[in-house]
Amino acid sequence: MLLTTLYIIGISAEAMTGAIAAGRHKMDLFGVIFIALVTAIGGGSIRDILLGHYPLTWVAHPEYVILICVCALIATQIPRLITRLEGLFLALDAVGLVVFSILGASIAIAESYGFIIAVSAAVITGVFGGILRDTLCARIPLVFQKELYAAVSMSAGALYYILIEFVKFNSLSTTLITLFFGVAFRLLAIYYGWALPVFSYEYKNKE
Amino acid sequence: MLLTTLYIIGISAEAMTGAIAAGRHKMDLFGVIFIALVTAIGGGSIRDILLGHYPLTWVAHPEYVILICVCALIATQIPRLITRLEGLFLALDAVGLVVFSILGASIAIAESYGFIIAVSAAVITGVFGGILRDTLCARIPLVFQKELYAAVSMSAGALYYILIEFVKFNSLSTTLITLFFGVAFRLLAIYYGWALPVFSYEYKNKE
Amino acid sequence: MLLTTLYIIGISAEAMTGAIAAGRHKMDLFGVIFIALVTAIGGGSIRDILLGHYPLTWVAHPEYVILICVCALIATQIPRLITRLEGLFLALDAVGLVVFSILGASIAIAESYGFIIAVSAAVITGVFGGILRDTLCARIPLVFQKELYAAVSMSAGALYYILIEFVKFNSLSTTLITLFFGVAFRLLAIYYGWALPVFSYEYKNKE
Repeated sequence: MLLTTLYIIGISAEAMTGAIAAGRHKMDLFGVIFIALVTAIGGGSIRDILLGHYPLTWVAHPEYVILICVCALIATQIPRLITRLEGLFLALDAVGLVVFSILGASIAIAESYGFIIAVSAAVITGVFGGILRDTLCARIPLVFQKELYAAVSMSAGALYYILIEFVKFNSLSTTLITLFFGVAFRLLAIYYGWALPVFSYEYKNKE
Repeated sequence: MLLTTLYIIGISAEAMTGAIAAGRHKMDLFGVIFIALVTAIGGGSIRDILLGHYPLTWVAHPEYVILICVCALIATQIPRLITRLEGLFLALDAVGLVVFSILGASIAIAESYGFIIAVSAAVITGVFGGILRDTLCARIPLVFQKELYAAVSMSAGALYYILIEFVKFNSLSTTLITLFFGVAFRLLAIYYGWALPVFSYEYKNKE
Repeated sequence: MLLTTLYIIGISAEAMTGAIAAGRHKMDLFGVIFIALVTAIGGGSIRDILLGHYPLTWVAHPEYVILICVCALIATQIPRLITRLEGLFLALDAVGLVVFSILGASIAIAESYGFIIAVSAAVITGVFGGILRDTLCARIPLVFQKELYAAVSMSAGALYYILIEFVKFNSLSTTLITLFFGVAFRLLAIYYGWALPVFSYEYKNKE
């Protein structure tokens, strides 16, 4: 129940930021809606396809598709407001990232996968929507180059797995602890500008 | 039978236009064939993967793979003719778009999905081949920025669903009506330059 | 056993070259690891998704995920050495390409598919990792434009299918013959600069 509410908040925020990204590339309404959908539910779809976990969430709940379309259309009407509320949207995005990661890990655990696949499912759910969004905008995904984003998803997935499988906390406590930890980690990373080391390498001899 | 014939015409036309797109990016024969395949059967493949609808069409009918390869190779020999016959190819592409949309909607209906998933399946089948083609050519998909293309697919899918499920027309009548309506809509859109509103938004403050 | 050993060598080499490619685009550690994973196991994942062949290899063997991460991290420490050992890595890449192709064809044969799907599975396994790597780096896939790469994969897949299904060789002999032929073909292609014809076509009249 809590997780569903947070999930709905998460996909709504992702849909709006996806729509704004589409606006930066001068897309038409279809492009805006498509990018919003991909940003909001692309990560979960890729996870389910990779794990063979059918039906996909949005296929079982088409109302989420409508919700995302509506959020995308709203975003096209109030882009300045969304930009001005940047802090709010960064916080909502942080909630979305951690909730997506928790959902990814919990689905993997429910299907009896181990630690590595649970963390992989968390990261795929958390970041693949943004990767698809950027790829469809023909640019290198932001998550590969900047900020502590995937690392938050990975930590949240790992923490969730450890609390459920080893510490044997129940699902609600684990969700709350992971959510608190993950969102705090993400917001601190933004505030202090934490980032992973960058690997920059130039070939000398050839293309 | 009618639908299969039209489907074969559709994938042949898509294969040829895909090959021409590859030629604009100076690809070798493998690139040409790959882009042709992705353009012609990429949309249906994505639809089937998202719906968990196996086997994929081309896996069950590998003769379509051969047909597309042959069409792509023919296109590399007669690119000027194809460019000169632009009107014909736009018409064939319109037929392909509507047939793909009808097939997408009918597969969703056959699997008992509702309106939203049927329309989504129509659009995915209709436009995802072009999205993959453009993404693999490292550019923003045309369908996100120009012309009434996805909207035609969406309308065709919605009309097909309504005629089958609510009006209770049989499959053949519904196909013919949807085909006529969809192709006319697409050709009028090209002729009159109809387009969806574009959402263009520039951040002021930051990257 | 032989094939598993060669597969491990192949994904290790692909992971390292993927990591180097990420370094050329100034990615952070997550980007490096993600690109390495996609390069090494993306092709096999796409093949399994297209054929509905679950679970995916890395989901069943998460230890491969760890191996690839370790190889990617090692590559970030010794990029100059890898560049200097270019010949070795081209040879390992050739082994990887042919082993991936053999695995693709053999999985298709095990699922009773015919020649066309077996060759398609070989090519998808062999080249799709590199296609995903380049697409995520926002550039046109190298395999569409340069060198005899996909053609080697296609030939290896075709040879494997013919030796198994028509000549009725056993699996080990077929693997060894295909491996020898494929790697030799690839290395000769590099040495002599063999390439497929390029299809370059410019529209005159319009965009």
